[in-house]
Amino acid sequence: MKRNQNLMRLKSSYLFPEINARKRQFLVQNPDALLISLGIGDTSEPLPSSIAKALAEASQGLSTVERYSGYGPEQGQKALREKIASAIYSHCVDAEEVFVSDGAKCDLGRLQMLFGSDISIAVQDPAYPVYIEGSLIQGVRDVVFMPCLSENQFFPDLEALPRTDLIYFCSPNNPTGAVATRDQLQRLVRFAEKNRSIIIFDAAYANYIQDPSIPKSIFEIEGAKKVAIEIGSFSKLAGFTGVRLGWTVIPEELVYDDGSPIKRDWHRLTSTIFNGASNIAQAGGVAVLEEEGLQEIVSVTRFYLENASIIRESLQSLGHEVFGGVNAPYLWVRFPGQNSWDVFQHFLERYHIVTTPGSGFGSAGEEYLRLTAFGRRSDILQAVARLKNRGVV
Amino acid sequence: MKRNQNLMRLKSSYLFPEINARKRQFLVQNPDALLISLGIGDTSEPLPSSIAKALAEASQGLSTVERYSGYGPEQGQKALREKIASAIYSHCVDAEEVFVSDGAKCDLGRLQMLFGSDISIAVQDPAYPVYIEGSLIQGVRDVVFMPCLSENQFFPDLEALPRTDLIYFCSPNNPTGAVATRDQLQRLVRFAEKNRSIIIFDAAYANYIQDPSIPKSIFEIEGAKKVAIEIGSFSKLAGFTGVRLGWTVIPEELVYDDGSPIKRDWHRLTSTIFNGASNIAQAGGVAVLEEEGLQEIVSVTRFYLENASIIRESLQSLGHEVFGGVNAPYLWVRFPGQNSWDVFQHFLERYHIVTTPGSGFGSAGEEYLRLTAFGRRSDILQAVARLKNRGVV
Repeated sequence: MKRNQNLMRLKSSYLFPEINARKRQFLVQNPDALLISLGIGDTSEPLPSSIAKALAEASQGLSTVERYSGYGPEQGQKALREKIASAIYSHCVDAEEVFVSDGAKCDLGRLQMLFGSDISIAVQDPAYPVYIEGSLIQGVRDVVFMPCLSENQFFPDLEALPRTDLIYFCSPNNPTGAVATRDQLQRLVRFAEKNRSIIIFDAAYANYIQDPSIPKSIFEIEGAKKVAIEIGSFSKLAGFTGVRLGWTVIPEELVYDDGSPIKRDWHRLTSTIFNGASNIAQAGGVAVLEEEGLQEIVSVTRFYLENASIIRESLQSLGHEVFGGVNAPYLWVRFPGQNSWDVFQHFLERYHIVTTPGSGFGSAGEEYLRLTAFGRRSDILQAVARLKNRGVV
Repeated sequence: MKRNQNLMRLKSSYLFPEINARKRQFLVQNPDALLISLGIGDTSEPLPSSIAKALAEASQGLSTVERYSGYGPEQGQKALREKIASAIYSHCVDAEEVFVSDGAKCDLGRLQMLFGSDISIAVQDPAYPVYIEGSLIQGVRDVVFMPCLSENQFFPDLEALPRTDLIYFCSPNNPTGAVATRDQLQRLVRFAEKNRSIIIFDAAYANYIQDPSIPKSIFEIEGAKKVAIEIGSFSKLAGFTGVRLGWTVIPEELVYDDGSPIKRDWHRLTSTIFNGASNIAQAGGVAVLEEEGLQEIVSVTRFYLENASIIRESLQSLGHEVFGGVNAPYLWVRFPGQNSWDVFQHFLERYHIVTTPGSGFGSAGEEYLRLTAFGRRSDILQAVARLKNRGVV
């Protein structure tokens, strides 16, 4: 058996396992160090009670004849698809256009399988590594980078870009924390219309948008249903990073060149190599989108945004240039002229703080660190105290 | 955007959605019919209480600071990997070789992504449709069919087969219910060794093997760790079809031609486009493999095998030739000279029983129906009464 050529094109390690390896190595040498993680964007706050209760009740229900359920529709339970269409999209998308998944990362992999190898893609630089790495696994060779820097307000210079079949776009952005304005998104949609491109819009952090002028969904932009797919997630919305639940919206109007609906192929593909998200997780998802659940998750979202604000002010007071962290859970901190893995190592050794080196998201991230606002408040306060004291206190 | 050529090679509908469509159509015309499903192999019995309790406790735990957990390792929780290695494999595989998944179907899709398009595959005919359809999605073009008929005891004539990179093999078999003997599996492993092929061994129904002389895992065969990957599932083992949990074993010794371990690429791929099974489902999986859970699932397995026996005897007494249903939850019933969709339609209209047409699993299934032993006992008894009375009673 020959090794798949496509896998050889990947770097040997995905970013986060590499960070974990460095962390472990540091702990071997410094077994007493109390590390604080502002690295991987993982939720830290317990689930609100109404949501945990729904998960537990669904679990217990499985031991009764009346409430046992086996295979559900691969596309998700009707009740959840309807809740997403109403509570997240105010019915501007139809429940039949919502496909429930076990998370954004997994659905990205399946979308990449859907479109195959014979396509061109554009990705923001820096970007979430899965856009490009999952595409490389599929054998995609034609990749265009869209530099997103402080110089261009982290929005790509569309006029300078060639046409591609797909455009990956994430807002609120991981890793920069930048949030695209309505005007920017309108330009993006017009650009896709002109080029007959499809936007893969990653809205996994949409709930962090507090500014009412900023769209939470690409589908708030006129014409977007003809040019965009949107990926959503319960991970950062409701603390479901471990529970695993997300969704993808594929509008009915989105068609291939030959006029056939992309949604039909997606339905076929997910029926073939996916079997739906866990029925327990889906019951939890419905509870998240009930009135009580929605109120509870608003508090958690605000909590993480307060964390962001604490970190942001602390770094600014120390003279750093900080982006993001306002309508987004990520802060993007500039270290002019420095190598980001060196800065990562410095933060690890001096402050015992784990971060994410910007270059892990692409070459345009070279002078940056990404800090996450996900974390226990005591850890966040401890971290900023260490920064202020220029060392571990 | 051009449509992915690979998707055009799939038939328009996956087998089970097609069956559901026919079922719905029948119900529109016969709204009062009480259909009994012996079609899709979906579990019907409630979860044993110790398992549901573990799922519920894990759910409730997520609302506490102490027991909240976010992202776990993509490869699965250590405790579960260890439990699978000990309880399922008696330590003949290492926990590090066990990769937890959200189910066999999903992991098949990822394995197909791992090996890519530039390979040849062999599949049993008839076979679970995902082996071939998932391969087609990846762009695989070189497919060899291995006819498995009553004439060859449902085991392929290996001498007549060309070499392929992958060999998909399922025992206890879906759909035929055939179970490969130790001697047959030894021949299969020798064949793979000689050809430097990799066997994808689907052991999703291993717990239905009651005959102690029959191997429950390909790894019981000497040399198999150098030529085989095994897929396991909690779906039919513990009624987790909706909960979603499975695993794949990739032995350390399994290498590509260049000597590099396949396990390393699998780790890289699952880190990139997968994010682990639900933490709640994984807690349930650990409970399944505890002493109490194991005892409870043995009863459920026996219950389904009793169903199989009831259906088998009923059909035999009516003069049908029936295969399977002894160490397997599927029965494979022969209707000489008949088209299997016609027989499907006849069972639907005359007996109001939903089955699966054999041809849905490949051309060698043309004269057969697959009946499943998964179902409520009252339904099974009602189904055999209808067969005996040659109509709905």
